[in-house]
Amino acid sequence: MKQNLIITIGREYGSGGREIGEKVASALNIPYYDRKIIDMAAQKTGFHADFIANEEHRVTGSFLFNIATGGYLLGGMNPQMGLSLTDQVYHAECDVIKKVASEGSCVIVGRCADYVLREDFTCFNIFIHAAFDHRCERIMAEYSLSRDKAAETVRKTDKNRTRHYQYYTNRGWGAAENYDMTLDSGRLGIDSCVRIITDAVNML
Amino acid sequence: MKQNLIITIGREYGSGGREIGEKVASALNIPYYDRKIIDMAAQKTGFHADFIANEEHRVTGSFLFNIATGGYLLGGMNPQMGLSLTDQVYHAECDVIKKVASEGSCVIVGRCADYVLREDFTCFNIFIHAAFDHRCERIMAEYSLSRDKAAETVRKTDKNRTRHYQYYTNRGWGAAENYDMTLDSGRLGIDSCVRIITDAVNML
Repeated sequence: MKQNLIITIGREYGSGGREIGEKVASALNIPYYDRKIIDMAAQKTGFHADFIANEEHRVTGSFLFNIATGGYLLGGMNPQMGLSLTDQVYHAECDVIKKVASEGSCVIVGRCADYVLREDFTCFNIFIHAAFDHRCERIMAEYSLSRDKAAETVRKTDKNRTRHYQYYTNRGWGAAENYDMTLDSGRLGIDSCVRIITDAVNML
Repeated sequence: MKQNLIITIGREYGSGGREIGEKVASALNIPYYDRKIIDMAAQKTGFHADFIANEEHRVTGSFLFNIATGGYLLGGMNPQMGLSLTDQVYHAECDVIKKVASEGSCVIVGRCADYVLREDFTCFNIFIHAAFDHRCERIMAEYSLSRDKAAETVRKTDKNRTRHYQYYTNRGWGAAENYDMTLDSGRLGIDSCVRIITDAVNML
């Protein structure tokens, strides 16, 4: 595997992208970042981690939304006056992503990392997806949800991720051309995805 | 590798999808079909192979186009009265694709094979893509074209393939969700793609 390679993983909700990311990082013996980025952005901005987790998939496409949130800074801790809260969270996460990437090879799941790092880092960009029903089954089992509730959660989360990615990157979420590799984890299985990714990374 | 597995490969023009398909078929010791499907459809319909090759990437989305070509049958050799020539070519290719798939495992490149076989066959569906400039370089070298001519050919061929796939399948060409695996052959290299695919197929 090349030195200082950042493996980014975008993933449909319920596809097991997080588990795949953790296992790939473990197999390659490199750090793994997912929600940890939220905690680091919280430290950086002074926002509470729960607030960031809630805010990070909003989209600030609305002019009124921007006006409404633009000047609302928590105790003046953040100097990015004029940016909406959602944009402030996004930029704080970008800074954290660039910082951890600059420290060496790692796996970063979600948070538009493929886009954030596109110019200054060598990345291997992956997207994990699976059939809708398969993902619902996984979410039902993991969170003890009814089929209807799981389906609603999957639909809503994917919609948020699609809009968030599109808004900040102007690219299509899950369009093959934006990734070096995409895999159907439902068809291949989690462990096969891990093996395919680690083998591919070692071929670079 | 599972018995009777059909590996379908969609590919951007100039991405090396055909070469990857040939090498995968060779590595797995199974038949490979690409333009051979045109010859088989020619035999079946009585149309000339060159005519089929020309016609197969047209799209019959226009009402006037359908009216204009709908009743034009070559010497009554094709019983599909009322279908446009392009639709007749498509349906002839579908029959050929289903026939070769029913004979056992194989690799089929292009021709919407992933969609044609989706209900009655076990497929592993792959899409190969690469950066535009990389594909232009390959086409320039392969066909001794100027950069402008190569770029024009790549653009035009991809546009035709996108429209053809969309028209006959109602799916997005190159959308990760339609494939079990997509690979950037420019990033990974042809031989790594072959290895990744054959390894993945052997994990199924």
